Amino acid sequence: MTEKTAAVLQYVDANRKEALERLMALLRIPSISTQKNHKDDCRRAAGWLVDELQGLGFTASLREVSWAEPGHPMVVGHDEDNAGKKDAGQTHVLFYGHYDVQPTDPDALWQTDPFEPCIRKDGEGREVIVARGASDDKGQVMTFIEACRAWKAVHGDLPVAVSFLLEGEEESGGENLLPFLRANSEELKADVALICDTAMPDRQTPAITTSLRGTVAEEIELVAARQDLHSGMYGNAAANPAFLLCRIISGLRDETGRITLPGFYDGVSIPDERTRQQWRQLYPDDLALLGEVGLSRAAGEQGFSAIEQTWCRPSFEVNGIGGGYRDDGFKTVIPARASAKLSFRLVPGQDPLKIREAFRAYVRRSLPDDVSVNFISHGASAGFAVSRESAFLPATLSALSEEWGKQAVTTGCGGSIPVAEEVRDALGMDALMVGFAQADDRIHSPNEQYGLESFHRGIRSWVRILAALAR
Amino acid sequence: MTEKTAAVLQYVDANRKEALERLMALLRIPSISTQKNHKDDCRRAAGWLVDELQGLGFTASLREVSWAEPGHPMVVGHDEDNAGKKDAGQTHVLFYGHYDVQPTDPDALWQTDPFEPCIRKDGEGREVIVARGASDDKGQVMTFIEACRAWKAVHGDLPVAVSFLLEGEEESGGENLLPFLRANSEELKADVALICDTAMPDRQTPAITTSLRGTVAEEIELVAARQDLHSGMYGNAAANPAFLLCRIISGLRDETGRITLPGFYDGVSIPDERTRQQWRQLYPDDLALLGEVGLSRAAGEQGFSAIEQTWCRPSFEVNGIGGGYRDDGFKTVIPARASAKLSFRLVPGQDPLKIREAFRAYVRRSLPDDVSVNFISHGASAGFAVSRESAFLPATLSALSEEWGKQAVTTGCGGSIPVAEEVRDALGMDALMVGFAQADDRIHSPNEQYGLESFHRGIRSWVRILAALAR
Repeated sequence: MTEKTAAVLQYVDANRKEALERLMALLRIPSISTQKNHKDDCRRAAGWLVDELQGLGFTASLREVSWAEPGHPMVVGHDEDNAGKKDAGQTHVLFYGHYDVQPTDPDALWQTDPFEPCIRKDGEGREVIVARGASDDKGQVMTFIEACRAWKAVHGDLPVAVSFLLEGEEESGGENLLPFLRANSEELKADVALICDTAMPDRQTPAITTSLRGTVAEEIELVAARQDLHSGMYGNAAANPAFLLCRIISGLRDETGRITLPGFYDGVSIPDERTRQQWRQLYPDDLALLGEVGLSRAAGEQGFSAIEQTWCRPSFEVNGIGGGYRDDGFKTVIPARASAKLSFRLVPGQDPLKIREAFRAYVRRSLPDDVSVNFISHGASAGFAVSRESAFLPATLSALSEEWGKQAVTTGCGGSIPVAEEVRDALGMDALMVGFAQADDRIHSPNEQYGLESFHRGIRSWVRILAALAR
Repeated sequence: MTEKTAAVLQYVDANRKEALERLMALLRIPSISTQKNHKDDCRRAAGWLVDELQGLGFTASLREVSWAEPGHPMVVGHDEDNAGKKDAGQTHVLFYGHYDVQPTDPDALWQTDPFEPCIRKDGEGREVIVARGASDDKGQVMTFIEACRAWKAVHGDLPVAVSFLLEGEEESGGENLLPFLRANSEELKADVALICDTAMPDRQTPAITTSLRGTVAEEIELVAARQDLHSGMYGNAAANPAFLLCRIISGLRDETGRITLPGFYDGVSIPDERTRQQWRQLYPDDLALLGEVGLSRAAGEQGFSAIEQTWCRPSFEVNGIGGGYRDDGFKTVIPARASAKLSFRLVPGQDPLKIREAFRAYVRRSLPDDVSVNFISHGASAGFAVSRESAFLPATLSALSEEWGKQAVTTGCGGSIPVAEEVRDALGMDALMVGFAQADDRIHSPNEQYGLESFHRGIRSWVRILAALAR
């Protein structure tokens, strides 16, 4: 480590409190992108980030998007010294994160207000900040912004050229991202994208995620009779859309957990034995992944461990289902309609549009003439794998290993971060996914949290990575 | 018809408007028995009926019940002349109906306030009264009360001894009824029970329902992980209770629509060919039953017509299901819990407790160790068939045939009216189910209605039946 970098790390250590306060201000903005009544809050969060970047000497602005709903603005920023650095042949990085957050339901299970962040100790005595978005992704976005702030504060300058792209629709389909990247490819193209939206495999081991799963998210509604019916008068004879929905969902997996859609596994490959071995060291058994959420055995495809099922195997999940009477007591009704929110997680090699079509064909084929179906797409994105030849991979792994005092590893991730694939499609560059979240951060769940250590060492990690990427 | 009866019918015709106004007053009381916040309304409806009966010269009172929840009072009434009539060997009838109503959801689909009854014309130009409970069962209860009123107004007396038992928990399990009948068997025992809670097979044909289906109603909740999970991080590996619930529900019927629980069909018999033939005349094809609700073909067991599926075959239905995210947009969550309200309709011969146990055993056996289940019972009652030898059956059929100018028939009914079975168990007497509702009355659904003709000719029918039952 150079003396320059050491001075920046010292600044980061000395200014922990102020960095945390800035994160808390951002967390107070309820920027739920999927709920229409939070549209203004999303814009407010975007504006807050523009102000931050401008304050750091970035040319930053809100950029409208209107290819698709909901249309929350992008935040784009470029460091004022980018042009000079690029002329001098310096590396140019594009940082990506998202300022939108998941809905907060079920609200009754939050121990504190989801948008009034508070610091508390978890069961291990670690200090964590609790709020919706703490880990996914506002806390992670701020690690990079704070690293830039520290470099600028100490040296008046960044080691490399830096641009920002902060999205407001990552949790709501993100359909504007690809057209936005394409429409602004000249402006946004850099040498490599840095994405901070992933987790570490455990508390000690830093990681670069090199593969991600894509998603096909579908909402379906089955409609049968003209109105809800009395099950005494019509039960047996009238088509029950809630029952048919259950049958359709149940039929999507066979007895061994394999997904039954024709062609679903086309293009899916199994990782080499060395990689599976590495993963077994991180997760010796299913309990290692599932124990902390109160489960013990892998529920998916037979023949794969829990971590393999999430990192390298495609999946099918019921994310929501509803139909008929759900209040107190009982009502002997046959519902007229029933609906479900369903998703497939895809691995690299699978074709999301082909799978969506196979799913819809299966549903249509499963229904009697009497029952109709409506489909709503909530996005379709491919899985992704980082090129192992990326020149920036070893430098980043080294910087992470130094900060954490432990060899950094490459891992898979079961989630979808479509931007990684889209950045490659639209801008022709690789994306390195580096994140500091923990598996027990409860993202998308009540009482989401982010460790203060994740936040602080995340900032320190980026300080080192920025130096390591400089030519 | 005697002159005495003719005079009473004339009174009924002349006082239609006042009878309708009394029904509307009762319909304005939102006596939803399954919702706790309507507890006082249930008591208010019961009190309204006590006042009516007292006004007609009945000794009537509210009777508390506390064997089970929710504990809405019974209304019991005896005509002041009962003792004398019984001493003289006159027939004694016990009339049963219920004053409680179903919940009103989905409220958005009501075209008028469910508890502000209004008169309007349906598509055929028939006048109907629209309100929750109009048909099930307040309108039907009032047909009998108005018949008594007319007899008393014209002749100062009833042709037979009459007692009333009006329940407030028919739509919410009705678990207090049987213990109440048993505890008051001396007081409530009569020669025959008259139950008015059923429908006519069409607009012209009066009917006595001679078989009913029982119900096993179960609510189940599956619980898996400690909290909702991110489907990217855990999808495939974590048990998904919404998926498991779908699999359990789907597995309850085989490909031919038969219910798969071991022993489920024990004791079930198929009606003789003559009865099936009679039913085919009323319902020549599936469309005859299903067409008016927008369906066309029987969805249950292969080999049985739609009407057979509802009148003489046991069924399984999903009455409600819920789990995970159901608001706008999409949330890639694996729910920690999912629940369903399920019911079996049973025919005479099936054992409800044995079937409940078979169901629970099947659910438990279908779950992995990681996933637990909670069961809530919402009632278990057997199916019922009236004795064909009942002495009161032919007299009642004749009275109905005269009023409607068409031969009255005996039919089955897919619904559960546990009181019929319980009256036989506890009081050792038969129950005749005579009702004037129509299949398109939308009971249990938004915009429930009762035809003004059903109401008026229902009153007239009882006027004749009371005379016909006199010795």
